Amino acid sequence: MSTGRLESFSDGVIAVAATLLVLNITPPLLKGHESLLHALLQQWPKYAAYAISFVTIGIIWINHHAMISRLRVADHPILILNLLLLLWIAVLPFATSLLAAYLKEGHGQNLAAGVYAGSFLAMSIAFASLNRHILLRKSHLLEVELPPELRRRILLRTITGLAPYTVATALAVVSPYVTLAICAAVAVFYALPIASGV
Amino acid sequence: MSTGRLESFSDGVIAVAATLLVLNITPPLLKGHESLLHALLQQWPKYAAYAISFVTIGIIWINHHAMISRLRVADHPILILNLLLLLWIAVLPFATSLLAAYLKEGHGQNLAAGVYAGSFLAMSIAFASLNRHILLRKSHLLEVELPPELRRRILLRTITGLAPYTVATALAVVSPYVTLAICAAVAVFYALPIASGV
Amino acid sequence: MSTGRLESFSDGVIAVAATLLVLNITPPLLKGHESLLHALLQQWPKYAAYAISFVTIGIIWINHHAMISRLRVADHPILILNLLLLLWIAVLPFATSLLAAYLKEGHGQNLAAGVYAGSFLAMSIAFASLNRHILLRKSHLLEVELPPELRRRILLRTITGLAPYTVATALAVVSPYVTLAICAAVAVFYALPIASGV
Amino acid sequence: MSTGRLESFSDGVIAVAATLLVLNITPPLLKGHESLLHALLQQWPKYAAYAISFVTIGIIWINHHAMISRLRVADHPILILNLLLLLWIAVLPFATSLLAAYLKEGHGQNLAAGVYAGSFLAMSIAFASLNRHILLRKSHLLEVELPPELRRRILLRTITGLAPYTVATALAVVSPYVTLAICAAVAVFYALPIASGV
Repeated sequence: MSTGRLESFSDGVIAVAATLLVLNITPPLLKGHESLLHALLQQWPKYAAYAISFVTIGIIWINHHAMISRLRVADHPILILNLLLLLWIAVLPFATSLLAAYLKEGHGQNLAAGVYAGSFLAMSIAFASLNRHILLRKSHLLEVELPPELRRRILLRTITGLAPYTVATALAVVSPYVTLAICAAVAVFYALPIASGV
Repeated sequence: MSTGRLESFSDGVIAVAATLLVLNITPPLLKGHESLLHALLQQWPKYAAYAISFVTIGIIWINHHAMISRLRVADHPILILNLLLLLWIAVLPFATSLLAAYLKEGHGQNLAAGVYAGSFLAMSIAFASLNRHILLRKSHLLEVELPPELRRRILLRTITGLAPYTVATALAVVSPYVTLAICAAVAVFYALPIASGV
Repeated sequence: MSTGRLESFSDGVIAVAATLLVLNITPPLLKGHESLLHALLQQWPKYAAYAISFVTIGIIWINHHAMISRLRVADHPILILNLLLLLWIAVLPFATSLLAAYLKEGHGQNLAAGVYAGSFLAMSIAFASLNRHILLRKSHLLEVELPPELRRRILLRTITGLAPYTVATALAVVSPYVTLAICAAVAVFYALPIASGV
Repeated sequence: MSTGRLESFSDGVIAVAATLLVLNITPPLLKGHESLLHALLQQWPKYAAYAISFVTIGIIWINHHAMISRLRVADHPILILNLLLLLWIAVLPFATSLLAAYLKEGHGQNLAAGVYAGSFLAMSIAFASLNRHILLRKSHLLEVELPPELRRRILLRTITGLAPYTVATALAVVSPYVTLAICAAVAVFYALPIASGV
């Protein structure tokens, strides 16, 4: 399969997943004499989770593009591994709404944060698996031949990217806010000009 | 019509249908002293149904691409048959949520499983009809001429693909879990490298 | 603007609108000892409205493609008229759910059917306006020059298409079922091989 | 990155955001002896907010196309600034439903209108930032070299576009209807043939 339609389908799923995130933010129902301002401010976890997830999905999209653009054609295993990556990206609207719903609750907030960072971790593992498969097993399908050294370096960078999400998932038992802060920091870091490689 | 825009529209519908599946998974409302962990585990049918449906839609997309890429141009009947295929693909988020809602209920679970596998069956029949129409009636629109023997073989493979969903639909009266297991097995089978043909 | 991106954006909106239709079909909540089968059959207006709307949107997409493919480039007024057409297409998920919700109610069913057919009518008027603008006012932007006679004939066919929706809207005061039947008949008619022109 | 896939992803997010707006319009639940006509008319803020937001998103899409089509390639900072623009566009379904929910309420209507116009303002600032970055800092990535004078004029026009939304946001404390009227006027103004520049 030419990579054109692979990209077009992936773009569709990624764009829809990013845009569906907003469905989690709804007009608040006011309780008693509560002011709308208070109610809107109260649901700040929804805004924070929305922004972090949206930027993270956007960065995955950028990295996805870089990964696929190295390919000349895609074979069946690549399509399937890409599908599993998309499956995890499409889970993020759920993980995001779970975190937003429980972050300020007196119970379940640690698990919710763990699921949130864990979903990012699962997505990153799926991404790394696909990248690994392309660079190590399907290097003959690459658009331009890459020296093994460079391929290893790209892969190392992808795998290094798993570390912060692993830490964020593990620290969810300590504090959901720490988890959220790490996920936010990762999004900001990759958005900086310095981090433009994949 | 050139097949480019046919693919672009089909990709859109298929990508949106796959991504909408996640809207069925929502943060659970805890009852009494229930823990979030327990509530999340309780809704495992939603995760199972999501994963099976997502992978199945993804495989349909791969097969759809293979089918359409054989065409040079598309005429009106092809567009309409393709539209009916998309109609059935877009039904899957409903069938998926129905199965997830009733799988563990004490009643209705057999019917829900039947509707679920039945929707896959309907989608597969729509796919086979379109493929049959292209290969037998519109072979002059093919990009590359295919010998009748090969066309028959491709078609046979497509029609063989109906069998497991027929069985899964029929066995829903016995057990919804058997139905679910068959649908999962079909998804896994087509995801294996060995099954890369259409 | 080249028509490529115009088509890509339009395809996106049309594909999403068609796929969102399914969100109106939800697993039924059973009342008392009601069986799931009964509850599923009871919501047949949802299935009928889904199928009619999906096919109608699909046919509009086919016609939209034919209309835009005649253009070499698109100017600002074309983009704006196209936007208004998309606005009416995107309204259809609401009109569809309104009809499905009230078709079998003891009150409001006539108005709901009127809004349903009226939305199709508004969409068709927006389509005809854009087609008229392209064929009569922007014929210098056409890919291939068309003789005035042919342009008039295409336009006449588009305008003739308004008649059944006008009738369907007007007859909503008599019976919502008549309205629904006309809308279904239009969808089936345009899906037939004979109606492949625009 | 070539601008093709940047456009394709942006088109996806913008098209989905525009189409999701309709989910805010739902069949009304009738209270007591209320007629459906009355209930439908009562929710006119939903229709007004839908139409204004849809057209505004459509115009942003047209302007986005003009902005990106000037580029030959996109680098990392452009992708990130574009992502922030998309983040604000994807917020609009929420802002729209907030305005529609509170416009006729006895409280919160001013804040809701402020959030609505404020979201348009934030989106416009993100747009202006990206355009400024492209025209002033990345002029070497432009498809065709533009004289500094012309670049300044394009930018001035983009920045002038912030004024009405600033006013609309500020006047929300006076009246939500004034805010809504300004947002509507902006949409109509940019839809006129005269305003076809960016």
